[in-house]
Amino acid sequence: MQSRFDKLRRTHLIMCLLVQMCSSELPFSRCFSFINMQVNDGSAVSNIQAVVGSDVEGYDKIEAGLVNTGASVAIEGVLVESQGSKQKVELKATKLTLVGGTDPASFPIQKKKLSREYLRSVAHLRPRTNTFGAVARVRTALAFATHQFFREHGFVWVASPIITASDCEGAGEQFCVTTLIPSSHEDPKTPLSKVPTTKDGLIDWSQDFFGKPAFLTVSGQLNGETYATALCDVYTFGPTFRAENSNTTRHLAEFWMIEPELAFADLKDDMACATAYLQYVVKYVLENCKEDMEFFDKWVEKDIVTRLTNVVEKPFVHVTYTEAVELLQKAKKKFEFPVKWGADLQSEHERYLTEVAFSGNPVIVTDYPKEIKAFYMRQNEDGKTVAAMDLLVPRVGELIGGSQREERLEVLERRIEELGLNKESYWWYLDLRRYGSVPHAGFGLGFERLVQFATGIENIRDVIPFPRTPNSAEF
Amino acid sequence: MQSRFDKLRRTHLIMCLLVQMCSSELPFSRCFSFINMQVNDGSAVSNIQAVVGSDVEGYDKIEAGLVNTGASVAIEGVLVESQGSKQKVELKATKLTLVGGTDPASFPIQKKKLSREYLRSVAHLRPRTNTFGAVARVRTALAFATHQFFREHGFVWVASPIITASDCEGAGEQFCVTTLIPSSHEDPKTPLSKVPTTKDGLIDWSQDFFGKPAFLTVSGQLNGETYATALCDVYTFGPTFRAENSNTTRHLAEFWMIEPELAFADLKDDMACATAYLQYVVKYVLENCKEDMEFFDKWVEKDIVTRLTNVVEKPFVHVTYTEAVELLQKAKKKFEFPVKWGADLQSEHERYLTEVAFSGNPVIVTDYPKEIKAFYMRQNEDGKTVAAMDLLVPRVGELIGGSQREERLEVLERRIEELGLNKESYWWYLDLRRYGSVPHAGFGLGFERLVQFATGIENIRDVIPFPRTPNSAEF
Repeated sequence: MQSRFDKLRRTHLIMCLLVQMCSSELPFSRCFSFINMQVNDGSAVSNIQAVVGSDVEGYDKIEAGLVNTGASVAIEGVLVESQGSKQKVELKATKLTLVGGTDPASFPIQKKKLSREYLRSVAHLRPRTNTFGAVARVRTALAFATHQFFREHGFVWVASPIITASDCEGAGEQFCVTTLIPSSHEDPKTPLSKVPTTKDGLIDWSQDFFGKPAFLTVSGQLNGETYATALCDVYTFGPTFRAENSNTTRHLAEFWMIEPELAFADLKDDMACATAYLQYVVKYVLENCKEDMEFFDKWVEKDIVTRLTNVVEKPFVHVTYTEAVELLQKAKKKFEFPVKWGADLQSEHERYLTEVAFSGNPVIVTDYPKEIKAFYMRQNEDGKTVAAMDLLVPRVGELIGGSQREERLEVLERRIEELGLNKESYWWYLDLRRYGSVPHAGFGLGFERLVQFATGIENIRDVIPFPRTPNSAEF
Repeated sequence: MQSRFDKLRRTHLIMCLLVQMCSSELPFSRCFSFINMQVNDGSAVSNIQAVVGSDVEGYDKIEAGLVNTGASVAIEGVLVESQGSKQKVELKATKLTLVGGTDPASFPIQKKKLSREYLRSVAHLRPRTNTFGAVARVRTALAFATHQFFREHGFVWVASPIITASDCEGAGEQFCVTTLIPSSHEDPKTPLSKVPTTKDGLIDWSQDFFGKPAFLTVSGQLNGETYATALCDVYTFGPTFRAENSNTTRHLAEFWMIEPELAFADLKDDMACATAYLQYVVKYVLENCKEDMEFFDKWVEKDIVTRLTNVVEKPFVHVTYTEAVELLQKAKKKFEFPVKWGADLQSEHERYLTEVAFSGNPVIVTDYPKEIKAFYMRQNEDGKTVAAMDLLVPRVGELIGGSQREERLEVLERRIEELGLNKESYWWYLDLRRYGSVPHAGFGLGFERLVQFATGIENIRDVIPFPRTPNSAEF
């Protein structure tokens, strides 16, 4: 047999690679002297039907009850026009091989409606279901479209560090990364006395792997800026972490972020880039994942295809934070959280703006009060606001948050001091303003929120293969 | 002014975005009434020359000594045929704006030969140099080509988890991820007494974020297998970690891995995929990074373009481990480490095979003794070897390591027991063999080694933006 990669394509007409018997009908039904099997190789939501006659080699395995839902089989045969109305073609089998059987009594993914919560407990098997297969394919398409968008526009991909001794936002709860605790999977019992200390009873960081406390990154932005101010436009695409004890449908302890950074750019460029990016990746998915999107439209979120088409075709609305607050104050809706100038917008406010006030259009809100935004955002001339922007979309709320960065050394230093941050630890960040400073801007996008937005899946734990949340790091 | 993203392209003929004055000549030379400046926007190694006449707005800034190497400038002008022989076109300036100046006395990246070691200490500024700019562009091209290769062949990208309670290889030194140690950047003084303990003086993992010990992943392979056995072909591309105290030019504590996993595939498919992948990405770089590759050929590794062209064009050599050992035993070269059947090949052996024995061709060595390979590799019928493969290339040695996975439940369970591993912790991995098991195979490739291979850069710390090594997690 030729290797599949010799010609870099499958000989799929003769030998079909088949993973599962997963049919919305009965797994197979007997009629006369042949059996119909619904089989799927993971490349699409829809199954292919294989017709296995009683004269076919391997038919005895079926008769013996060895071929069950979840088994993997190899079926050789020819594609023929289908007799039924459900599909155009079917595979007329000439040989069936049972590659790997299953025990029907214990197989955790039986062909019945399974709750998403249950499926999280078998995250190693859930990609075998329709929904999670479709999510995986759309996720892949969104990731590829992301790389392709930035590649087409000349951006350099920067692998921002995961382990870091920096703290981007001056706050943010971080995970500590250490080798001081000599634990193992095999024996998690660790006496505290094994952790090295100084004479004063303090943890002796000098004996840690990095010689000082190190953490998992909460954002690659500051590192991205170093490359943007050298090579113009860059982006990061990598995992980031928050050790926040949030048990919501919107939060993960580990998630992937996309953080572009544009040099010689202002907030307007930043908004234009975010708009072009979002429209590009959504269009890519609509064009390249048609069948999966029809599946989501039918089973997960009614009319999601229309909602996404609107995003691609309609202009995004621009309002300032001040205008948004006025709109919300005039709104007839009762909000749980009060709206007043100076307070951060809550998820309910954001969704009202995009879903109601602007009838489903994405909305970019700009120029937030400086007190509720990070130290590095560029101060506007009014002395009260900064050149920040949040992009709000229906269902998800804030999808993108960005800003023009403060490129003026003195202004930035003053802000760091005002906020009581440790200026010394930002020495390299300040160097970017000391030597050939440029106006620059960027934004961050949580990739899993984008997948939620594009699939309609409600819980963020269902759009990443192995979600990490408080008390959960299985698999 | 129009936003740069309104039409998704730069109006670069009128306004050139310029980051640096970095010339191999003097930064600028005065002759008659104009000044030549070498400027660069980070999109290529070669600079563009801007000619600024004394009648041009902004010329006074130059005369006042404010425009120095490392400054950022904006120059409006028209592209004209160059008078000199070095370049085809140059920018005849009509207006010069100093965007951000530098202090020439303290600027750390002066226009002189700087050691790579020194540049590591200013990793936030080193992308402004020729070499690190070129590395960043080739890295980006290799990453994009990776995604494109797998996309073209229908692979699903799987974000394997970074934080995990699993331990892939049953060994491998891991970093612990914890919130039990209440440290911060601002005040790293942590009394040991703040770490929660049980009554027995053991660290109380139940109070940790994940309720048990958690670690940084050393490989995404086992997680990748869960998706491959559901959706056929998948790949991971993400960071992985080793807490090994290795201070070499080949080791990082944090590095990016690419791990494809093919379902319904054997070792031959795996080798074919690795070959096709490597040839694809190398060809992509040769075609898309011509100027950068000429730069590396001239300044970093003589004839690297020829070496890489050979990789694309020549067939890869296949030998078994047993044949390789015989070859090495017959070799006239004295090795530091002895060669004998059953011992792992050392870097010197690997390089001899690919560089000398097979005159610079990549070599795939297969069928290693099972004792020196991981528990999950498929056992061959001889009872002594496993279906493993290592791909060796000149200069780097082992670039890719892969295997067919043991898909037979009983054989895998027996091996786990033989090695004294904790079978319970592999329950979900074994499930893949319980329910619809399929023959499958995959490999892992350290992305930074690939960048070393493609650029000729000797030290792995110089091919990742912010290297993490023992005692070093700066920036």
